[in-house]
This record gives sequence, C-alpha cells and structure tokens, in this order.
Amino acid sequence: MAAEQIQIFDTTLRDGEQVPGCKLNKEQKLIIAEQLEHLGVDVIEAGFPVSSPGDFDAVAAIASQVKNATVCGLTRAVENDIDVAAAALKTAKKPRIHTGIGTSESHIKFKFNSNKEAIIERAYKAVAYAKKYVEDVEFYAEDAGRTENEYLARVCEAAIKAGATVLNIPDTTGYCLPEEYGAKIKYLKEHVDGIDKAILSCHCHNDLGLATANSIAGAINGARQIECTINGVGERAGNTALEEVVMVMKQHPNMNLFTNIQTQQLYRTSQLVSEHMGVNTQPNKAIVGANAFAHSSGIHQDGVIKNRQTYEIIDPKDVGVTESAIVLTARSGRAALAYRAKLVGYELTKLQLDEVYQSFLTFADRQKEVHDDDIHRIIEASKVYSEIVIN
Amino acid sequence: MAAEQIQIFDTTLRDGEQVPGCKLNKEQKLIIAEQLEHLGVDVIEAGFPVSSPGDFDAVAAIASQVKNATVCGLTRAVENDIDVAAAALKTAKKPRIHTGIGTSESHIKFKFNSNKEAIIERAYKAVAYAKKYVEDVEFYAEDAGRTENEYLARVCEAAIKAGATVLNIPDTTGYCLPEEYGAKIKYLKEHVDGIDKAILSCHCHNDLGLATANSIAGAINGARQIECTINGVGERAGNTALEEVVMVMKQHPNMNLFTNIQTQQLYRTSQLVSEHMGVNTQPNKAIVGANAFAHSSGIHQDGVIKNRQTYEIIDPKDVGVTESAIVLTARSGRAALAYRAKLVGYELTKLQLDEVYQSFLTFADRQKEVHDDDIHRIIEASKVYSEIVIN
Repeated sequence: MAAEQIQIFDTTLRDGEQVPGCKLNKEQKLIIAEQLEHLGVDVIEAGFPVSSPGDFDAVAAIASQVKNATVCGLTRAVENDIDVAAAALKTAKKPRIHTGIGTSESHIKFKFNSNKEAIIERAYKAVAYAKKYVEDVEFYAEDAGRTENEYLARVCEAAIKAGATVLNIPDTTGYCLPEEYGAKIKYLKEHVDGIDKAILSCHCHNDLGLATANSIAGAINGARQIECTINGVGERAGNTALEEVVMVMKQHPNMNLFTNIQTQQLYRTSQLVSEHMGVNTQPNKAIVGANAFAHSSGIHQDGVIKNRQTYEIIDPKDVGVTESAIVLTARSGRAALAYRAKLVGYELTKLQLDEVYQSFLTFADRQKEVHDDDIHRIIEASKVYSEIVIN
Repeated sequence: MAAEQIQIFDTTLRDGEQVPGCKLNKEQKLIIAEQLEHLGVDVIEAGFPVSSPGDFDAVAAIASQVKNATVCGLTRAVENDIDVAAAALKTAKKPRIHTGIGTSESHIKFKFNSNKEAIIERAYKAVAYAKKYVEDVEFYAEDAGRTENEYLARVCEAAIKAGATVLNIPDTTGYCLPEEYGAKIKYLKEHVDGIDKAILSCHCHNDLGLATANSIAGAINGARQIECTINGVGERAGNTALEEVVMVMKQHPNMNLFTNIQTQQLYRTSQLVSEHMGVNTQPNKAIVGANAFAHSSGIHQDGVIKNRQTYEIIDPKDVGVTESAIVLTARSGRAALAYRAKLVGYELTKLQLDEVYQSFLTFADRQKEVHDDDIHRIIEASKVYSEIVIN
C-alpha cells in the first residue's frame, strides 16, 4: 500500500502566538512565515485578522509573501470576522478561511447560551458564508474533545454540506487520552455522511502532556492533517509540537504516513521561533532541546561511542543539529573521559586512564561540567602526565 | 472493581541528574529527597553509588534521612556495583537494589559483545547476588523497547526466578509508539511464567515526545509502577514527567488507577528541582509551566471568565498553583479587558468598553503584554475617562 501524506498545518503564528509575552510584530511574523515555507509546511495559519488592526496587516503581508503554502486566517462563526479574514487573505495564492464554533455541552451552554440545533445552523451558515469568498474552507468544532461523537458527527455533516474542505477536531482543553481521541476520529470517518469530501484534522493541546500521542492516534485512525506549532508553543501548556509529530512519522516508516517537511530545517526553525518569541525551549525538549542529543552518563556515553545507534534513534543531522555533544560530568565513565581526552590530544593507556579518572571524579564532584580546558589541567596535574602520549 | 494503585518511582536524583549541567551535590539531593517524601512518591531512586564517591555519600545520606519511601540505588549487573550499592543503602528503612543489563540486539552485540544466553545468565546472577543483601530487588532490561518480546519474556522469567520483585521495562531510546509499548507490557503479563510474583514497571524516555503516553499505555495494560522525574528532566529529551502521568490518572477516574501523590505539592516540587538543577521548565510545560494556567486570547479569556471549566480541565489549586493568571495581549478580547479593568477598579459600560478597547489594541499591538499600570494609563487617557465609574 502506498504511503499516505499527512498535511502539516502550522499555527505558530496564530494559536502559538496567543501566549503571554509571545506576541510577534508584522516583520517577525514575515520572517517566521518565510522559514515555515523553507521547512515545507502545507498550511500556514497566519493569524486571526479581526482580532486587531496589527494582526490584520500581518496576515495580509504574509498572504502576499508566501509562494507555495496555503495561507489561512482564523474567524469565529461571525460574518464580520469572515469578511475581515477574506479581505486580509485577498492576495494569497492559496487562501483558506478557518471558521467554526464550540460544540461541547460546556461551550454551547456557558459560552454561547445556545442549544444544539442552533449551533448546527450557525456552523452551516458560517461555512457557506466563507465559501462565497474562497473555495478552501476549514471548519473547527471547538472543544470537540469533550463533545459526544454522535452530535459531533451531525455538526460535521452540516459543515460538509455547506462546503467545508477540512474538518478540524480540536481537543481544546488537552483532556483526551490517545485511545479516546483516536476512537473519535475513527467514529467520524465511519459515521459522517459525505466524509470523503473533506479531510479530518487533529488539533491537540498539551495540558496533560499527550498532544503528540493524540495527534498520532488521530493520524493512525484516518486524520490527514495535523495542526501544530514549532516548539509546541501555544496557550497554557501549548499545542502539539510540529517537530515531534513529524519525527514520529519519519522514525516509524511502518506507519506508512509521510509529510513534506524538510526535517533538516527543524532545528533552525525552532531557534528562530524561540528567538523572536523570547521563549526558550527547555534543555530536555524532545527533538530541539539543547540536550536532545547530548549524552553525559558513563553508561550511555560508552554505548554511544561504541555505536551511536545504541542510544540514539535519530541522527542529529536529520533535524539540522550538526553534532551530538558529549558532555562530561561526575556521572561520566572512563570511556567518555578517554574519548574526550583523545579529542583534545591525549592518548591514554588503561593504567593511565585509571589514574586520571580518579582526579577527574574528584574534580567533577565539585563542578557541574568538565570542559576541555579542565581536561588539560587534570591531565597535566596527574602523576602519569610525563608518560602520556600527546598527539 | 476497586481502583488499583500505581506506584510512583521517582528517579530525578538518578536518571534526572544524569544531565549536562544538572549535577546536584549531597545537600541539594537531601533537600529534594525530603520534598519527594512530602509529595508522596513510593520509591526514591537516590543515585548510582558506584559512579563516584560523591554519589555514594549522597545515596547513603538519603538512605538515613528518608522515613517512608523506599530508597533505591542503581547498579550494573556487576558484583562490585551491587556491593557498593548495598553499602550505600545500609541504613535505609526500605532499601531496594536496581540492577540489570541491556537486552536488545544492539546492546547485546555492540555494548556487551555477548550473546542472548550469556545475557540471561548475567541477569539471573545479578539479581540473585543482590538478593543476598536486600529482599526488594528491581531488575531492568535496558533497551527493552527495542528487544523482541519473546526473548524479553525469557529474561524476565530468569529475573523472577532469581527473586526480582519489580521488572523494569525501559524504552531507553524513547522509540516506542504508545500502542507498541502497551502491547509489550500486555505480552509480558500474559507470557512470563511467575509474573504474579513481581510488578511490571514503565520507564519511558521522551525522545519523540511520547513518554507520558507510553507510560500510561503501560499502566492501562497492567504495569503497576511508573518511573519518572520531576519536570521530565533526564538525559537527552528526558524521562517521563511525574506531574503529567499523575495528573492524567487523576483527571481520568474511569482509568480506575490511583497514586499516593499529594498533587498540591507538584508545583512546589517542580520549582525546587528547577532551582537546584539550574534548569527552567519552558513556559508551555504541561502542569508546571509558567503559562500552564494562563489564558491570554480573547476567546479563551471570555470563556474562562464565564465558566472556568470551559477551557480549564485542571483546577490550578489541585497542583499547588494559587491562581490562573489572566494576561492581556493584543489577542485579548473585550471581556478580558473589562474583567481586568474591573479588578483594578474601573466599571465600564458597553459603550465605554468599545472606546477603551480601541486604545487598548493600539497599545497592545506595540507591547508584548499589558500590565495593570498600563490599564490605568490607557483608561485615564481615554475620551470617556470622566464618565467611567471608579470603584
């Protein structure tokens, strides 16, 4: 069976930007949009045009600049929002309007003070209204994660009848377990009339740390678009991290799914977004964290030196990181010390290594990290220095 | 059916500490161990005693200090490692030795230059040797994630025959998909002779962002211990985050699993570990990140103000965060502005709000965040200031 493509919908500039302290200006959004094209994303959600004049301008500028990707603007199920989004997207080569409404009981009751039938009608009307402007209309059923499947299927049917090309099924609060979210996508694939006319899209939040797993469960069960952000930025605990879902599919070829992402651009894109948003990723962030490819414990370092594959499932070059950094600490073993000593110019025999290693441990117990110049000092101060071969 | 307990095995002080720049001294390890007891973890893995004299001392000190939790020390399948660990754990009320060996083809071939039968023998001997010192011996099958299930089951049987009380099934490289990892645990539950004499433990790494989902899949399929670290610290992309797996189970009572964790201590523990390791969590870290409970977009803020449950699945108080911070940016809506204005003393009518909101947006398009003193300035400069009711 031929592998199937998962569209990557990047919402760093919309959902990712909705973060305290992370707001981007127009120039920053344009720089990031350009890099997202290099990265190969299929859809760039550029902003929420009605939200402020600044964001309208940014979406319009991105629409003019982007060459290959679809450019998308968010709206509520409100005519004025859609008018404004259409205006912002006027110059886009491939424009998409993303409209929708909350469908969970909590949203219908507390947010809209409405009822199920009225929500279906608003969903239909919003999509139909957006279709007057563009062919490509994505519908979101906000809080779909907490919406019962039977009603959700009816909302999806209405959106398809109105012309929706994509159905976004957001786990807005990040509540679902992977098997629940996967089952929801499967249910919709099997129960929505006309489902072949649209593709299902995963939009998962990370409140319980499950966004990546939920999106992957969605794709396994038939979704063909994943909405995500660089570094997983976004409100609260953020969105699905683009770099994670892309690498899961790349490292698991038996899933039979592929994306258009140029993975060698992942690290550069991550750095660019961190820099402009002023938000660093934590060192232990998967794929793009500073330590993602660093090995410091003795056991691990020994294994990696013998054969990289022992502890490393991803070649750092595949995500644009030029080298696995081997960092020495008091947890590092003899093999790691010998490896690093050799790199800085000393060839140690086993006996010499035993001697130097003791000094190394005393030093490392006091310091957090042992750098190359420390190694010179440790070796020069050792009893066996005069016997050591210096390369 | 009565809910079943999942033991929480914290390895912040061992696997978490094996990180470039994160090394802790003895005093720091003691402070964190004390907090881990407040938090209610069942097992504290205190270190790898043979790795350095400093770590031996730290494990010994923790063994003396800890009152309720089991204190565990790591070893390789090497007699000297086990002797040293037993010595470090001598004063522990509930000591556990954690020994094991790599079982994947890659580990057997490249790391040990050995064969399958010899590895089984070493596994058996290591457990039996550790049993001379302590009753509670945990066995790890390193790189179990990439070990074929049939051979893994044979290794587990040997460890059980030698007296192992816990079988740790690590996904050392963070490679597994949740359904694969869950299926592996299920296979072992069903195929290992004597499996009722030991409990299965999940130890998942986060290289692909799936550690939490994999651990949960393990628990659903019969594992009864999860190994994890505070903030998910650890080598490369880190370990399973304790706070995430605990809250997944708490928020999903239908899983019918519980832990002894005092969740109100999660935030404090996270802060303590960040501080001592010198590693901050990213703002979008699930459960404990600075933004985990912050709402800044207009749509979301409006929802939260109407009814918290609309966007918040976890009550921040449950994890020890005292308040959801509402932060204003250019993506914030009228409702959020009105809410914050009211908090700082201004009651706005709908017309006044429209007027003030325009000034707010112009201001917010230039600034990353709008603070309370900015709100005073925006309102005081507005045309409608004289009409506004000041509380």
